[in-house]
Amino acid sequence: MRATLMYGAGDVRVENLPDSAVKLPTDALVRITASCICGSDLWPYASMKPEDGPARMGHEFIGIVEDTGSEVTTVKPGDLVVAPFAISDNTCEFCREGLHTSCAHAQANFWDTEPEEGCQAEAVRVPLADGTLVKLPVTADSALIPSLLTLSDVLGTGHHAAVAGGVDERTRVTVIGDGAVGLLAVLSAKRLGAEQIILMGRHHARTGLGREFGATDVVSARGEEGIAAVRDLTGGHGTHVVLEAVGNMPAYEQALGVVRPGGVISRVGVPQYEEAPIGFGSLFRHNIRLAGGPAPVRAYIEELMPDILDGRIEPGKVFDTTTDLDGVPAGYQDMADRRSLKVLIRP
Amino acid sequence: MRATLMYGAGDVRVENLPDSAVKLPTDALVRITASCICGSDLWPYASMKPEDGPARMGHEFIGIVEDTGSEVTTVKPGDLVVAPFAISDNTCEFCREGLHTSCAHAQANFWDTEPEEGCQAEAVRVPLADGTLVKLPVTADSALIPSLLTLSDVLGTGHHAAVAGGVDERTRVTVIGDGAVGLLAVLSAKRLGAEQIILMGRHHARTGLGREFGATDVVSARGEEGIAAVRDLTGGHGTHVVLEAVGNMPAYEQALGVVRPGGVISRVGVPQYEEAPIGFGSLFRHNIRLAGGPAPVRAYIEELMPDILDGRIEPGKVFDTTTDLDGVPAGYQDMADRRSLKVLIRP
Repeated sequence: MRATLMYGAGDVRVENLPDSAVKLPTDALVRITASCICGSDLWPYASMKPEDGPARMGHEFIGIVEDTGSEVTTVKPGDLVVAPFAISDNTCEFCREGLHTSCAHAQANFWDTEPEEGCQAEAVRVPLADGTLVKLPVTADSALIPSLLTLSDVLGTGHHAAVAGGVDERTRVTVIGDGAVGLLAVLSAKRLGAEQIILMGRHHARTGLGREFGATDVVSARGEEGIAAVRDLTGGHGTHVVLEAVGNMPAYEQALGVVRPGGVISRVGVPQYEEAPIGFGSLFRHNIRLAGGPAPVRAYIEELMPDILDGRIEPGKVFDTTTDLDGVPAGYQDMADRRSLKVLIRP
Repeated sequence: MRATLMYGAGDVRVENLPDSAVKLPTDALVRITASCICGSDLWPYASMKPEDGPARMGHEFIGIVEDTGSEVTTVKPGDLVVAPFAISDNTCEFCREGLHTSCAHAQANFWDTEPEEGCQAEAVRVPLADGTLVKLPVTADSALIPSLLTLSDVLGTGHHAAVAGGVDERTRVTVIGDGAVGLLAVLSAKRLGAEQIILMGRHHARTGLGREFGATDVVSARGEEGIAAVRDLTGGHGTHVVLEAVGNMPAYEQALGVVRPGGVISRVGVPQYEEAPIGFGSLFRHNIRLAGGPAPVRAYIEELMPDILDGRIEPGKVFDTTTDLDGVPAGYQDMADRRSLKVLIRP
């Protein structure tokens, strides 16, 4: 089968590899019908050292179950399924609390750290299939596939940012980042009723989609100028919630600048730093809280899917490019160059 | 009048200064009948440079109103009052939300940064008297005075830690620090119904009081050994909430070690660091949240006072030493040497 490998920064290849297959009684084999490239894939694409490669790529997919292990009961060959970016058993104490990304099962993992599987491929072996896979009530050629595919990661991640930040109808929200997660954080904040949603981003087409998703204001300036603009829009105090969907230090510093006393910075962009200011002069003085982490998107699928099926939300609009597996290397470069917002792959 | 001044690390003096007096129509002058030394006073006592002194000291008191400005309406001469460690108007948008430590009024301040007033003294000018002072329904010689004095800071701060951490009857809690705030964080967690309360502290008399306040377990080991002990007590995963009542980096690192995935570190010890680990390997990976800050104790007085008046809680037990103003310099040294837990001052 064909699958995507990253050999190092800027070096993505699609190669023939041995077919994935069921190994354990709890596995399923899924033939992938839709996958995509994630903003988080761009971090290794910018910095991966050749000695850390080659790595299998991709953590989002929809596909058709082709085979199941003897213990799998919730899906069967022929079912169309979606998978979260994290493998979980959906039964441990953390999963029961809705924190599937901290699943206690020995086989729980992120696709990104599964050594021999990746979702930018023709097929994938899915561990803990009963916990990980969710059946979709449509066919593989449905026009809803792009939106349903966002349940794998970017919609659930934007929703997690908003939930972890406590967004409700009394909150003003700043969203930092105009990538797919940032835009779906806007959609999620709107869905949860936020009073004001300020999107910080510079890319005109993206911020336009952000307005369509519910942003009430767009601030294109960065740094001190951007912070001043958000403060101007909020009576001087900043917003109750900041959804930080980038993950680098300038984004964190921006969040510190626009958050209101007593407010929350909710991070879903994977931090590219370990140490950061959290002392008296940054978080502590005004009781600023910090929340977020890898989104337990499995916990949100049942809640979010009906809104897609009923057409109330169209998160699939974040896909502005579609390609086959051959086009994946170019898709990485297009996303890195910000020519594409998010690339849909039809293997 | 006599008042306490710190000239530098280890150098506290009680001197005669000009009498405090009402200056603004919103001021009150209060004759102090009970004050105390705070664990946070020990930070400058350990490190203050002589060029930063002399500084007026003390931010907790009960006293009798002696004079009021023309606009003061809620207290009158002869009233016994308690004051929070932060001056606030109790009417701005932040005060109305219960975040009095972020009061937007130009005169809002911490006593510790009021240049010409301090509460380890015979009297004090209280700015924004209507917002800051709360009348007490007892006399100055009541046996409840020590407990009521903790409404100024340490009880409200322990309570804030627990509230900001979301403690309820479903939570397991670790409290880091066996100072007055840590012990009253134990009491507060117990009051809010916590299922398990693990106190990390090494001082036998203090942890004994902690057990009396509600600690179910005491861990005296620190560092990796202490972390392992807490994990042993919690099925391996740590506690939902960690109340961090120290403020130095070892305490923060201990908090990271004992917090459960999806849990909260609630800090009320003033951080003695600015940068700290918050990236993928510390907070982010398991959706650990960070909360806390200077406690808006003014917001909690009405809720906590009845429990003291009715004898349901006795937070005043944290005072193990009483002195007059002359004994204040020795009181600092006793607290620094951990011979006294908390020193009550009867000026």
